[in-house]
Amino acid sequence: MQQLTPNPSFSLTIRVQLLNRAGMLSSVISALAEAGGNLGQIDLIQQTRKISVRDITVNAYSAEHMDKLIAVVKAVPEIRVLDVYDRTFQIHKGGKIHLESKVAVKGQDDLAMVYTPGVGRVCMAIAEDKRKVYDYTIKCNTIAVVTDGTAVLGLGDIGPEAAMPVMEGKAMLFKQFAGLDAFPICLNTKDVDEIVETVKRIAPAFGGVNLEDISAPRCFEIEKRLKEELDIPVYHDDQHGTAVVVVAATINALKVVGKPIDTVRIVMNGAGASGIAVARLLREAGVKRIAMCDSKGCISKDRTDLTAEKLEFVSETSGSLADVIKGADMFIGLSVKGALTPEMVRSMGAAPIVFAMANPNPEIQPELVENDVAVIATGRSDYANQINNVLAFPGIFRGALDARVTKITTQMNLGAAQAIASLVSSSDLAPDFIIPSVFDPRVSHAVAAAVHAVARQQGIANA
Amino acid sequence: MQQLTPNPSFSLTIRVQLLNRAGMLSSVISALAEAGGNLGQIDLIQQTRKISVRDITVNAYSAEHMDKLIAVVKAVPEIRVLDVYDRTFQIHKGGKIHLESKVAVKGQDDLAMVYTPGVGRVCMAIAEDKRKVYDYTIKCNTIAVVTDGTAVLGLGDIGPEAAMPVMEGKAMLFKQFAGLDAFPICLNTKDVDEIVETVKRIAPAFGGVNLEDISAPRCFEIEKRLKEELDIPVYHDDQHGTAVVVVAATINALKVVGKPIDTVRIVMNGAGASGIAVARLLREAGVKRIAMCDSKGCISKDRTDLTAEKLEFVSETSGSLADVIKGADMFIGLSVKGALTPEMVRSMGAAPIVFAMANPNPEIQPELVENDVAVIATGRSDYANQINNVLAFPGIFRGALDARVTKITTQMNLGAAQAIASLVSSSDLAPDFIIPSVFDPRVSHAVAAAVHAVARQQGIANA
Repeated sequence: MQQLTPNPSFSLTIRVQLLNRAGMLSSVISALAEAGGNLGQIDLIQQTRKISVRDITVNAYSAEHMDKLIAVVKAVPEIRVLDVYDRTFQIHKGGKIHLESKVAVKGQDDLAMVYTPGVGRVCMAIAEDKRKVYDYTIKCNTIAVVTDGTAVLGLGDIGPEAAMPVMEGKAMLFKQFAGLDAFPICLNTKDVDEIVETVKRIAPAFGGVNLEDISAPRCFEIEKRLKEELDIPVYHDDQHGTAVVVVAATINALKVVGKPIDTVRIVMNGAGASGIAVARLLREAGVKRIAMCDSKGCISKDRTDLTAEKLEFVSETSGSLADVIKGADMFIGLSVKGALTPEMVRSMGAAPIVFAMANPNPEIQPELVENDVAVIATGRSDYANQINNVLAFPGIFRGALDARVTKITTQMNLGAAQAIASLVSSSDLAPDFIIPSVFDPRVSHAVAAAVHAVARQQGIANA
Repeated sequence: MQQLTPNPSFSLTIRVQLLNRAGMLSSVISALAEAGGNLGQIDLIQQTRKISVRDITVNAYSAEHMDKLIAVVKAVPEIRVLDVYDRTFQIHKGGKIHLESKVAVKGQDDLAMVYTPGVGRVCMAIAEDKRKVYDYTIKCNTIAVVTDGTAVLGLGDIGPEAAMPVMEGKAMLFKQFAGLDAFPICLNTKDVDEIVETVKRIAPAFGGVNLEDISAPRCFEIEKRLKEELDIPVYHDDQHGTAVVVVAATINALKVVGKPIDTVRIVMNGAGASGIAVARLLREAGVKRIAMCDSKGCISKDRTDLTAEKLEFVSETSGSLADVIKGADMFIGLSVKGALTPEMVRSMGAAPIVFAMANPNPEIQPELVENDVAVIATGRSDYANQINNVLAFPGIFRGALDARVTKITTQMNLGAAQAIASLVSSSDLAPDFIIPSVFDPRVSHAVAAAVHAVARQQGIANA
């Protein structure tokens, strides 16, 4: 049960009424602690001579554990539970984003400028020169976050409505980390042609398209076609955002172990959208030897069940993950919990690097191999070296929109990866610090600047 | 040239540097005044012993007039024009709306609640019960403002990009007057099927659809089909918003002249989308006799060129507008500048009512018939009795979303019209005050409450 650490995604605030008597609060707190709850903020809401009302925030490790924590508090004699909030649900109530006007419409003069009749002059200026849509509308700063809800987090095909909270969360991150206005477009269709058509039809309002949580292999075709047919950047974050951050972390992990990137052999597990994208960008970064595995083992010449994407990564070797990982310098997992065993790690070459990025539970629990690896990274925030797309996509779109490019190129992704890697100074670089924090305020600026610089080098910047 | 009044849609701010000497500022001001500019705010930006810098705001009546005003200022001896802002364009710079997060993402705990892994629990709750999308996402408060850019203001088919400033302005009004979050969907297609499909596919994120500036007759079919095929309210504001406000104003205008609504004869000019909708809602409100004219004259039995919508309003009489307006109680114009002459007005019955709502210039200038009419209204803010959709659509959508109805019904529109009319108390009611101001803060609340009440009466409220 070692992965069952209380965490803020199962966070409760319990409002209790206590008699004003010594020991009352401590009985509640010790009941919660004994039941495995992790106590947070305790607020005094009201106090009279006789009673006090407090909000006690406590993290649990599962929904069942939340129920248990509520039950143990209710069982404490002489206290009353007045209310219970599930903080995660509470924070989602009514949605997490909203629209605001940049200027208030306080009277007829304002109305005449922002709306009729004044707005007509601005419309005509755009009608006469369509490029002015970037000057006088939100297009210059606005991203469509597009999904069909087929591959949402690790939850699978849960549909466009259920995908909304993730897309709104994504919009919050675009705002927080890059000042971009992103709006969720959750599509009521899974058909590739219909998705492509729909995005093309709504494109006039948007300066960029972030494809999100669309299942493979449809995501490849959708991205490819939209890139060809639209004149604004289209980016499938699950592929390229992941690739950028993995490559950034790889560059720094290899520095830690002192191995040149063009000499290492990397074994990957998971050949979905993100796996393929990571492998492609690793090659661009200089990696020569990649053995890619899917659920059926190594992708090798003798396999007859391979998609076009997988065929790019056919290797000479064949066999199971356990076979091909022997002697490898690095493991990159974008697959499922438990796919990697301690034995496999111990069979790797000297100073092995392990990126176990399955969500929410990694391919291997870091504790099981902490003495066997040189560097280990996961997708989780409760271990060192969190590989998180948030490091990439806000700055990449910021740079792309600032440069007003029509495409985000492989070179831009590579530049972004190098920029992220460079933020860890050589004096800070360590086995448990190969990648900057998501909350490092330099990240999105560095990434945006790198993307803008590459756009200029490639001669495709329009601003 | 009487309509050429300086107005805020042609507003300049001119930054001038003046020598600090008596009479300098007044020469600039008198030059502007002599050239017909209407002076507004004058700000002191900087002052030294030798010079002062001021921002002078002045309204013009046309783009050419703006150029002339700049020229006359430049011609004043010993002053320097440092900068010139076109205030309308300035206010549109970078767009007029933006997205904000409701909560800041300050650290890992926040991230774990608004995004992965916590968000997964909220997604699953919606996947298990789709109605919860209204509880935990922006759907409950979000409107799509949908256009194809084919009938933007009076500007015609200027395309989806050029329509953006209007749709953003609309979004501002939704926010300002009803707290609703509206987002522009400007479609890159004019095909009815494609528009219907596209709106259906993006509907999961939205609680309602406001169709805007789509040309007739396509707008009728698009609205009809979307109403049938979507489970969220769909509203073509150009039709129904206009109808609601015209009926509200009609109710009060008839009170002013003391004529019962079921006895009057109304002549309408303009049988486009808004004209048809106004005529339909007037019938619902009790009007028995409507003669509708289009550019070819009265819609009568002997016409062979009539659409299905126009056929609803075939009248016994035939002839030109000048023929059928004789003896009428009321004229309602949703047509073009100059369509109504003083002679026609003088041929109407006793105490005639004239609504001349062509934009931006009415069917007749009010000054020309001020002694011949009992009540006159226009779409303009510089005359009394402004008929403006802003009185209707924010409150109607507020009420529809609060009641969580799947449709906005005719009865709701009628209820909204009555609510607007009722806000003019009998003591305030006068020939020049038949309709509340757009900025009357009671309006959207009264309209929303009326819509909600009708929804409950009709047994279709879901909240």
